[in-house]
Amino acid sequence: MRLRVELLPDESLSFSDVVLVVDVIRATTTAAAYLGHGASAVRFAKGYQAALGMKSPQVVLSGEIGGLPPVGFDLGNSPREALKADVQGKTVVMSTTNGTKTAYLAAKSARQVLLASLYNAHAAARLALSLANQEIAILCAGREGGVGLDDTFTAGVLAEYLLLMGSFVPGDGTLIALATRRSYSDPLEVLKQSAAAQALTRVGLEEDVAFCAQVAACPLVPGLVGRPDTGLLFKNAAEEQTKSDATGYSGCS
Amino acid sequence: MRLRVELLPDESLSFSDVVLVVDVIRATTTAAAYLGHGASAVRFAKGYQAALGMKSPQVVLSGEIGGLPPVGFDLGNSPREALKADVQGKTVVMSTTNGTKTAYLAAKSARQVLLASLYNAHAAARLALSLANQEIAILCAGREGGVGLDDTFTAGVLAEYLLLMGSFVPGDGTLIALATRRSYSDPLEVLKQSAAAQALTRVGLEEDVAFCAQVAACPLVPGLVGRPDTGLLFKNAAEEQTKSDATGYSGCS
Repeated sequence: MRLRVELLPDESLSFSDVVLVVDVIRATTTAAAYLGHGASAVRFAKGYQAALGMKSPQVVLSGEIGGLPPVGFDLGNSPREALKADVQGKTVVMSTTNGTKTAYLAAKSARQVLLASLYNAHAAARLALSLANQEIAILCAGREGGVGLDDTFTAGVLAEYLLLMGSFVPGDGTLIALATRRSYSDPLEVLKQSAAAQALTRVGLEEDVAFCAQVAACPLVPGLVGRPDTGLLFKNAAEEQTKSDATGYSGCS
Repeated sequence: MRLRVELLPDESLSFSDVVLVVDVIRATTTAAAYLGHGASAVRFAKGYQAALGMKSPQVVLSGEIGGLPPVGFDLGNSPREALKADVQGKTVVMSTTNGTKTAYLAAKSARQVLLASLYNAHAAARLALSLANQEIAILCAGREGGVGLDDTFTAGVLAEYLLLMGSFVPGDGTLIALATRRSYSDPLEVLKQSAAAQALTRVGLEEDVAFCAQVAACPLVPGLVGRPDTGLLFKNAAEEQTKSDATGYSGCS
């Protein structure tokens, strides 16, 4: 089995099997939070206008431009807000700067697309391993075309779990992600240093960074179930679990 | 002063000031070795055919395809070979898979282009700091469109030296490179794990990897001095030094 980590969502990349899309601050964390809080599905729209076109009583629009909710949207891209929102049985349509675009890149070629973060890291790694036939690729969203320290660290955490459970020969991207993960003992410390976190702090949303730094607090994994014209549709793909397998910061110290 | 590390030579990147181009296995190591062994200049050709067109008694052709010298070339891309070659007073024309292309990308926009490696890391960091007005960018060649563990580690070593001598706020790419550098205590250990080193080992050139893992054994820094149609011309840009400032593996443990 191959294990790849791609630190940047280059348009030339292609995938054959399972891809874990990582935009830890905040899209892939927030998507899991919506499903965990009772949303029936999360749909990644192909941009803000497409999202606005889907507005209905059974739909909640969530997204960000520069960290804040776009005009006409119901909610931002905040996992803390997701856990308080009235989304029970509804579809949440999301459009964000980096995360949703990266999911589209993965969906062009991958057989399975899962949304991963620190928040659902255990469940995402387990599910990827159970689904993969030949390759697990971890695809980092990064930030505006550059690498993200937050996503690279998260990729390292996921790679470490995969190497614990399976047998892989790590390539250069994986070794860089693992080195980044091993250089920091505290996920919040490393996330705070990322440009993504600093941008959130500038708009008063630093508490979201602490939320995103939780490891394995959520047992749900958004998995791609359909590719309608209106976006990528994700539902929980993890096996049913009655409660979180959160263990605080175990496995990542 | 800004310090950037770019882990991949994406065509969309642009640079305003000083760029340290890194292809540690092997182009930027080998270029310094040629200048250190008496070559008057190193010219990076725009491909193999362009290099072949420059053949003359005063020119030595050096390069690789798949690690080995292309047909019609005098030498491979080996720094060990460079130190034994008859290049005194000659121009060495080089064409390699990743390194020369990355130098072209830097030369499109940068004010100063320097070739850096572990081999000349002290001299390259010192020179970059003395030349820069606003920004030092470390641009990694990577390998066939993917990140390189070897180049990322080297970027981390260079960034560490720059942070020792100057004041910079490190961004995400720089923090990833520093984390990679800090995860490995032995440069040869980390270089050996890279895909670039493994490809060389497959063609019997593993001794080049050990050469490329030497830190600060060479006081010369190839600096771009001209951009003729026939390629990028590099001459030593470091201050004259009568001997190496090699200190074994000091500063990188």
